[in-house]
Amino acid sequence: MSVHAPLAGVLTDAEVLRAASTDRSGWAGSDPGGVVRPREVADIQTLLAWAHRTGTPVVARGAGTGLAAGAVGVAGAIVLDLSRLDRIVEVDVDEQLARVEPGVITADLDAAASAHGLMYAPDPGSVGISTIGGNIATNAGGLRGAKYGVTRDHVLALDVVLADGTLVRVGRDTIKGVTGYDLVGLFTGSEGTLGIIVGATLRLIPRPTRTATATAYFADIGTAARAVTAITRSGARPAVLEILDGPTLAAIDDLERTTLRERGEALLIIQTDGFGAEEELDVLTTAIASLASHVQTATDAAASESLLFARRRALPALEALGRTLIEDIAVPRRRMAEAIDRIAAIAREEGVRIFVFGHAGDGNLHPIIVTEHAPADAPVPAAALRAADRIFALALELGGTITAEHGVGRLKRGWAQRELGPDVHALQRRLKELFDPRGILNPGSSI
Amino acid sequence: MSVHAPLAGVLTDAEVLRAASTDRSGWAGSDPGGVVRPREVADIQTLLAWAHRTGTPVVARGAGTGLAAGAVGVAGAIVLDLSRLDRIVEVDVDEQLARVEPGVITADLDAAASAHGLMYAPDPGSVGISTIGGNIATNAGGLRGAKYGVTRDHVLALDVVLADGTLVRVGRDTIKGVTGYDLVGLFTGSEGTLGIIVGATLRLIPRPTRTATATAYFADIGTAARAVTAITRSGARPAVLEILDGPTLAAIDDLERTTLRERGEALLIIQTDGFGAEEELDVLTTAIASLASHVQTATDAAASESLLFARRRALPALEALGRTLIEDIAVPRRRMAEAIDRIAAIAREEGVRIFVFGHAGDGNLHPIIVTEHAPADAPVPAAALRAADRIFALALELGGTITAEHGVGRLKRGWAQRELGPDVHALQRRLKELFDPRGILNPGSSI
Repeated sequence: MSVHAPLAGVLTDAEVLRAASTDRSGWAGSDPGGVVRPREVADIQTLLAWAHRTGTPVVARGAGTGLAAGAVGVAGAIVLDLSRLDRIVEVDVDEQLARVEPGVITADLDAAASAHGLMYAPDPGSVGISTIGGNIATNAGGLRGAKYGVTRDHVLALDVVLADGTLVRVGRDTIKGVTGYDLVGLFTGSEGTLGIIVGATLRLIPRPTRTATATAYFADIGTAARAVTAITRSGARPAVLEILDGPTLAAIDDLERTTLRERGEALLIIQTDGFGAEEELDVLTTAIASLASHVQTATDAAASESLLFARRRALPALEALGRTLIEDIAVPRRRMAEAIDRIAAIAREEGVRIFVFGHAGDGNLHPIIVTEHAPADAPVPAAALRAADRIFALALELGGTITAEHGVGRLKRGWAQRELGPDVHALQRRLKELFDPRGILNPGSSI
Repeated sequence: MSVHAPLAGVLTDAEVLRAASTDRSGWAGSDPGGVVRPREVADIQTLLAWAHRTGTPVVARGAGTGLAAGAVGVAGAIVLDLSRLDRIVEVDVDEQLARVEPGVITADLDAAASAHGLMYAPDPGSVGISTIGGNIATNAGGLRGAKYGVTRDHVLALDVVLADGTLVRVGRDTIKGVTGYDLVGLFTGSEGTLGIIVGATLRLIPRPTRTATATAYFADIGTAARAVTAITRSGARPAVLEILDGPTLAAIDDLERTTLRERGEALLIIQTDGFGAEEELDVLTTAIASLASHVQTATDAAASESLLFARRRALPALEALGRTLIEDIAVPRRRMAEAIDRIAAIAREEGVRIFVFGHAGDGNLHPIIVTEHAPADAPVPAAALRAADRIFALALELGGTITAEHGVGRLKRGWAQRELGPDVHALQRRLKELFDPRGILNPGSSI
């Protein structure tokens, strides 16, 4: 085998290199050495074997929708763009699973499942643009996480090309199985640093027959947080439980000419599903009735969708205001109100605008730091970076995490080390060295 | 620190050693060197540091209810009995989590959760006698697995004493979090071979407000399997979906003087839960109405419990017939009928009695090989061992696994290697060496 053989299809056009050096986090690094877009697993094995031999860094990449610079090309690296491995190989209705290639867009998988009355449950905000391989690499969460869990909970088996080019299959096609250590869990969320995911067997579940939706507005964040506690104590189990703060509502009003903020300083969007969806929503809304200033419910699909409107327009509304730095902390649910209040204080003190929405059912908040419009490669203002650092510190102080679902990438590496502590970080580093002794897989990212 | 210090509390009574050398698999090995029953994590750290230094094997053990000889003392080893670390440290209602020590009996945790309207969802058959530490070490499944998943899906964080005595905490107290590789998943199911689990933070969920239960009898296993497919396609999501074969029904009839087998050659026990439990059960029973020969439903607790009667008496009925060898395969659901038919053929050919029941929703079958009554340390008849081997081979041939929820232990090590294949097995061995370079943690078990 020629040393040059695997590099026959390498793209080096300036535009291609530039595009592969960034993602949706606003990261602006140096261009990679090349980009490859294989259609066959064998080509990926050949590439990795060559990279392993030559010590060439390889960065796996899906749709480039990451928010932590976890899949961006760096100087001297080959970016392994997996977007052409995009086949839904099989939807197996009776086993309730799907076999897919990593480049499949997540919403396309869910649509294919839906045609058979099934659902791929994880639904990150980026579901319409991100790939299932990227979702697995980051262990992506989503709106339905409160009830259905995250990506890891739905991955049964993975085909993985190891650092030296060996192709292995880990996990199994049955729902249960405990033979050996959980390598599926280990590769899921490993951000391309332990191996290259080239195929996956995913669990599907019956699509809920019914959904019921409510919006509830509150006078302040503290009251909304008490409503979350009341919901938790009600015995109901919402599939979706989203929170938006007043400034986010105002931003949506500005963009959409709505008057959401007149209804309150905080919004909860709640969805129940399954055979008892309507009764479950009744239990919920009764539990929060005395706390809310405005409640609206819907049980048909179109009206439900209109209640989700604010959540879907939140990020676009903030992007209209300026450049966004999207954070992703989680805190214990009872600390949510405190977290949001203290984030508001950080915004005042640092003189930046911060908007907060997130998945209240998981304690997962997305503080969005908005700065002046600027080109993607302009440096992020120092005040915004200081605010981000203070938000990370706050998450840890409150017993939470610096990243609930977006990943560590290049952006949060130092903070990840702090969250893990020296003993666990050392253990993680040794795992990395075991899987990738030459350090060629996405170096400088994650652990 | 004196070398002998950690061994001050070592028990060496013959009875204690004998008891610690076996479990419920019928394994009969040689006695360990001693048994310790610490009450403090610090003592476990001291023990491990000493064992690491001296190369002494340490076998962690809970209630000794294992079915794969995964926690049995072996010659020269110290058995680390964790049953006295049995405190439920906290049930946090608003965060919906519990902090526990490993020696807590799983049903006790569920009862403590139940007092607050919550549920610890995983419910292995041994829930009343096994410890949560053992459940985590084996990644135990259970009856509610079809809907609620297995132990791993409910573990948020673990306190682990590593092989050299270092205490680490992995995971987090928030529901979501993706900082670093998934060490919680790695320790869960590692059968005491990577570290000693000395504490856990577990997820609790709202206890379902209602349950509805049905029993359905069928003329043969093939028809029952078709009913499972019909249920899968109905859009309903049963929390429990158990299958029992005709010989098992006959054994229950013998013990309990019932006439279950007159109703059919196969029984499905189905339970739905949640706000829509009754309607969901209606959908299910309608879907299987044309296949079943006898259907009974119940929506109140007492009547539901009586419908679960057959499942609860299955193992006692078989134990009354002789010595039981309990297997634990999973196969793709559509191969279940074929698996049960071929197990019946294996029974005929080997001249042994094999009864099958299991979790049909997961494709998880428990073939029980029953031989003549004999003392626990008498050798298992060769025909029974041959039948077991053929059942393992069958599981792999059908695309399944040799152990869905009981674990590998000492009993299935060779078969685990076969299931994993050489590349993945080698990777797993390297993980083991990373965590336990001196090979002191439960040597000879699992991987």
